[in-house]
Amino acid sequence: MTVVAGETTVRVRYGETDQMGVVYYANFFVWFEVARVELMRQLGFSYKKMEIEDDSFVVVAKANCTYKHPAKFDDVLRIRTTVTQSRRRTITFAYEVFNEAYGTVIATGETLHVICDRHGRPKSLPEKYRQYFPLTHAGDSVAAGTARKS
Amino acid sequence: MTVVAGETTVRVRYGETDQMGVVYYANFFVWFEVARVELMRQLGFSYKKMEIEDDSFVVVAKANCTYKHPAKFDDVLRIRTTVTQSRRRTITFAYEVFNEAYGTVIATGETLHVICDRHGRPKSLPEKYRQYFPLTHAGDSVAAGTARKS
Amino acid sequence: MTVVAGETTVRVRYGETDQMGVVYYANFFVWFEVARVELMRQLGFSYKKMEIEDDSFVVVAKANCTYKHPAKFDDVLRIRTTVTQSRRRTITFAYEVFNEAYGTVIATGETLHVICDRHGRPKSLPEKYRQYFPLTHAGDSVAAGTARKS
Amino acid sequence: MTVVAGETTVRVRYGETDQMGVVYYANFFVWFEVARVELMRQLGFSYKKMEIEDDSFVVVAKANCTYKHPAKFDDVLRIRTTVTQSRRRTITFAYEVFNEAYGTVIATGETLHVICDRHGRPKSLPEKYRQYFPLTHAGDSVAAGTARKS
Repeated sequence: MTVVAGETTVRVRYGETDQMGVVYYANFFVWFEVARVELMRQLGFSYKKMEIEDDSFVVVAKANCTYKHPAKFDDVLRIRTTVTQSRRRTITFAYEVFNEAYGTVIATGETLHVICDRHGRPKSLPEKYRQYFPLTHAGDSVAAGTARKS
Repeated sequence: MTVVAGETTVRVRYGETDQMGVVYYANFFVWFEVARVELMRQLGFSYKKMEIEDDSFVVVAKANCTYKHPAKFDDVLRIRTTVTQSRRRTITFAYEVFNEAYGTVIATGETLHVICDRHGRPKSLPEKYRQYFPLTHAGDSVAAGTARKS
Repeated sequence: MTVVAGETTVRVRYGETDQMGVVYYANFFVWFEVARVELMRQLGFSYKKMEIEDDSFVVVAKANCTYKHPAKFDDVLRIRTTVTQSRRRTITFAYEVFNEAYGTVIATGETLHVICDRHGRPKSLPEKYRQYFPLTHAGDSVAAGTARKS
Repeated sequence: MTVVAGETTVRVRYGETDQMGVVYYANFFVWFEVARVELMRQLGFSYKKMEIEDDSFVVVAKANCTYKHPAKFDDVLRIRTTVTQSRRRTITFAYEVFNEAYGTVIATGETLHVICDRHGRPKSLPEKYRQYFPLTHAGDSVAAGTARKS
């Protein structure tokens, strides 16, 4: 089975911290978004064009994050993104956020998305994108983050 | 059984929208934070003082959100916050976000927090705050959002 | 001369602070936006509808802020917004941000906007909105914040 | 005269756009912050350590931005940062934001900062950092962005 995955890095911005001296929790979801968009670029297409040219929006339906260690200002974080489920109208991404300097996992998360048109109506993922998101099946044992697409 | 709950409203800011024309998904977690802080104020104490005077930080360990309907610029949203679990060192809050004009639930979520000192070390919730967060037990059937503390 | 002005309050959110323990500087511009939208509501119209129904976007061309005292988590801030210049295609707003508890001015700022259509092309402010933004002239000595429209 | 300057790039994040389909104006100030921190790294020191090890915070006192062209989702922006004034207790940075693909300037801005200790009290820039920020004088004709430090 093919595992669709990729990696990207972000550096923690000052404005992403809060008065606890660590990153404010909502910002991990912003990075998940960055990581999704970069995964798509690595797979070979532009999410920007997917919206404009194919009227297909990857709309979030569920999101979660588990925080294990704090991220601090100026830390470089590596985000490994894996497609854990891909169906006709939905895609699920899993994320592992590593502190690049220490190699430790500081957070994990998942987002479930529904493909929608510009009016917010669910639609099937256009055929041209199916190659990047092969349909997963109940029997697939997706081990998130263990391999890259190749 | 006492249900600890409260409500607050926010109005969607322009900067909270994205190019889909709806609220960017990470902002719901910002509102959950606002709602937690307001719940504490309604219960009778200041979270700000809890940090400063009692060295107790309500640090997020897990967060999730399920998105049912989009929120739009200038919408007034009502957030109902309920304490669904309260243990020695942890508190779980559940949130329901309503569109005030239509009364529909547009999102629900949950956050699990660990009480920590300023150095990030877990600690027990100080006794003075226990009255606001009575310990919940396995047998409690907490029906989120069905009642307010009184 | 009529002074067009209004006031609104915001409470500082946790996520708006940074690791200095005070509000991150970019957030003042978010509040200026909130204050502009509330001023329009107080004047009698909805900025949301102005965009949708009249294809008129109040696009920012310049913005500045002077920071005098820090804002802290949970502070209530009062923002006094004044229209300091109103021309055929442009409107300038000035802002004074007060700490509600102490009455001190903590920041002042200004934003210059160009009225544009949905494609970003400058246009004249539609006639129906001119009553709210009477044309200012070179000779007008606009004393920001000294009076409200009435 | 030495010109202290550097460059960095950012890619526009989805969450940085608003419902106009372009970047929300406050985000340019976030990027200015990123650019300042990267300039310091390029000069040879870490702003993070400057705060922690030398109790010196570069606190913003004034900020402005002029918006010439919109930035859009996924655009790569190049920010050229120049120190336009450096005094005993203050530093002024100027920024030019370019669309990397077209080479056009889309925004310019400036921020004035006061060096403060952890309690927010102004102090002189520590001697060890003076080499990176040589004192500018009234007669200096600083041509922002025309050269890099070398």
